Amino acid sequence: MTGLRRKAAIIGALMSDPASALNLELKAVGVEEAWFRIEHGHPSIPQQLRQRLLSVDVAAFMARGAAAGARVVMPGDSDWPAQLDALQLHSPWALWVQGRGLDALAEQRSVAIVGARACTRYGERAASELAAGLAARGLPVISGGAMGIDAAAHRGALAAEGITVAVLACGIDVAYPRENSTLFERIAERGLLVTEAAPGAHPTRPAFLVRNRLIAALAYGTVVVEARVRSGSISTYCHARNLNRVLMAVPGPITSPESGGTHALLQDDAQLVTSADDVAALVAPLGSVSVDPLARSKTEWDQLSRDERAVHEALPARAPVSVEAMLASVSPELGMARVFGALALLAERGLVQEQPSGEWKRVRALRGAEA
Amino acid sequence: MTGLRRKAAIIGALMSDPASALNLELKAVGVEEAWFRIEHGHPSIPQQLRQRLLSVDVAAFMARGAAAGARVVMPGDSDWPAQLDALQLHSPWALWVQGRGLDALAEQRSVAIVGARACTRYGERAASELAAGLAARGLPVISGGAMGIDAAAHRGALAAEGITVAVLACGIDVAYPRENSTLFERIAERGLLVTEAAPGAHPTRPAFLVRNRLIAALAYGTVVVEARVRSGSISTYCHARNLNRVLMAVPGPITSPESGGTHALLQDDAQLVTSADDVAALVAPLGSVSVDPLARSKTEWDQLSRDERAVHEALPARAPVSVEAMLASVSPELGMARVFGALALLAERGLVQEQPSGEWKRVRALRGAEA
Repeated sequence: MTGLRRKAAIIGALMSDPASALNLELKAVGVEEAWFRIEHGHPSIPQQLRQRLLSVDVAAFMARGAAAGARVVMPGDSDWPAQLDALQLHSPWALWVQGRGLDALAEQRSVAIVGARACTRYGERAASELAAGLAARGLPVISGGAMGIDAAAHRGALAAEGITVAVLACGIDVAYPRENSTLFERIAERGLLVTEAAPGAHPTRPAFLVRNRLIAALAYGTVVVEARVRSGSISTYCHARNLNRVLMAVPGPITSPESGGTHALLQDDAQLVTSADDVAALVAPLGSVSVDPLARSKTEWDQLSRDERAVHEALPARAPVSVEAMLASVSPELGMARVFGALALLAERGLVQEQPSGEWKRVRALRGAEA
Repeated sequence: MTGLRRKAAIIGALMSDPASALNLELKAVGVEEAWFRIEHGHPSIPQQLRQRLLSVDVAAFMARGAAAGARVVMPGDSDWPAQLDALQLHSPWALWVQGRGLDALAEQRSVAIVGARACTRYGERAASELAAGLAARGLPVISGGAMGIDAAAHRGALAAEGITVAVLACGIDVAYPRENSTLFERIAERGLLVTEAAPGAHPTRPAFLVRNRLIAALAYGTVVVEARVRSGSISTYCHARNLNRVLMAVPGPITSPESGGTHALLQDDAQLVTSADDVAALVAPLGSVSVDPLARSKTEWDQLSRDERAVHEALPARAPVSVEAMLASVSPELGMARVFGALALLAERGLVQEQPSGEWKRVRALRGAEA
């Protein structure tokens, strides 16, 4: 391990607030210069910070992480997740990582699934099924390792034998919350634990908020599964919004306070997702997937009734025709009422449109049509 | 009753398809001329239609409606619901109405609540609570008198002693579905039954689709409560869209097929509503109501934590300041981490914004702030 890497890891451990003026100033000058300024007591460096740096037992600090099976990655490394650079001067100095999947994070459009710790069974099921569906498609599932929605998301991804990434607010060797210890062990084996906190560091409330920016930045899109109106997971969502990531939320019963926050997000700028299909389509590269929520599994032709098919075929590809002209060209048993009914349904599908003249025309071709 | 009114009611009864070329042609020339053309066999009139008109026993036809306690209203009447004129040539020739509330339909921004016949208890509860909330605000609740969501909406409005309007696809004296007979009686007493079908007419599938345009046109906005992906209530929604009315849908569990259609609408162009408050705000005249989904009952100030209030006050109204400057002006016990945490929460509320310089500024004033 180079001196640079150690320095980055230690400076990161000393900085609790990525948005502080001091951190931004040091970020702007780079690791070596920042180390030099702290070590030598540059005018902008608080005396306390210098003393903390000088008191670090570097070998012990690094050994503690290594003993936990973790290593340090830093900006410029070939496996550094480049999406974190969107955080600019708020990006981490370095990350402690344990497990596998860092390459998947770089290559795939991973998805963050976050939500309330005190969630319902419905939320737990939704999170775990979404995560399993995404993992089955090869998309890494990122969350925060908390109880409730986070844990359900990690478990769903693991159950589908996919990659899941837990971004912690504590040291890599600190299992918090303790109830998820076994889950963290499984993630370290089959997925990835990530944190910018120093080995041994215990989580604080500000650390959770600061950590949330990493979840949002590592993911191509964030899904909020269940959240009350005032919920910590909204903070991850807001970071994702600031980073122009895909914003998604899962609806729930309007009678459930646990869905109050997600409904507020959906009334704001979140996109409603009901399945891993929906999420995958939203995070997919443009043009690679096309999902019509009304026509998922079947072709559009399959979904038409016999009347609708007959009426659609009776319409020429371009020119509008009158209902009476259509009546003349369809089977005689289709009366005006059935033709009108079929037209109304075809119009609902966006296939045909009535003209101001009262005539009708095709608006677009059938998707997956056989004829 | 004038001859004109009788003629309009009878022509309306003869026309099963408001979108047919024949109906549009007759609509364009008006009641008297249309009657003349049918009676005298104008070249565009099918022979069959003329024979049907000549066979009508006008006195008996009108007497049947009157016996049911209904009367005919037609365009130009002082209590004709003017919003139906948005249907242009597809608007009804006349309506049979029974009960009270026609004036409320003209004066208030009524709301249609529609959805599946085969709904869940959740949908039933949502429909009935929304309807009760709207009725309590004086907004008439319109629906189609069907089982399931429709009936729940009517019942909710009646329970709140509000006006509810059932728009039928059958004659005003035909209780369809029979299970709702008692409900129809209560609506006729305390609300309004409306139909363009002739007295005695039984409903047909096309008649339901044709009727849906009246529900959509009478209402200022349409709420779909529960609907499978292929549901008849989607047709009402599409009519509402064509008429540029407010489009709303209620979310539900993503595990419920009964919410599959509403979720598809929400992924399309419906606005998500979770309460009568939401609906009332969306159908209210512009500027008359302002509802922030994150701050319904309390002022924004009430919702802030002590840290948030302190940090918000430390920010000058306009100029951005650094976190360190803020630290200097807040109580000393607030360290950088707590200031940062409060800033993150204030940013989530859209109250403050970080500048590219790393400084922070207020973006807008607190709603309902005391300070």
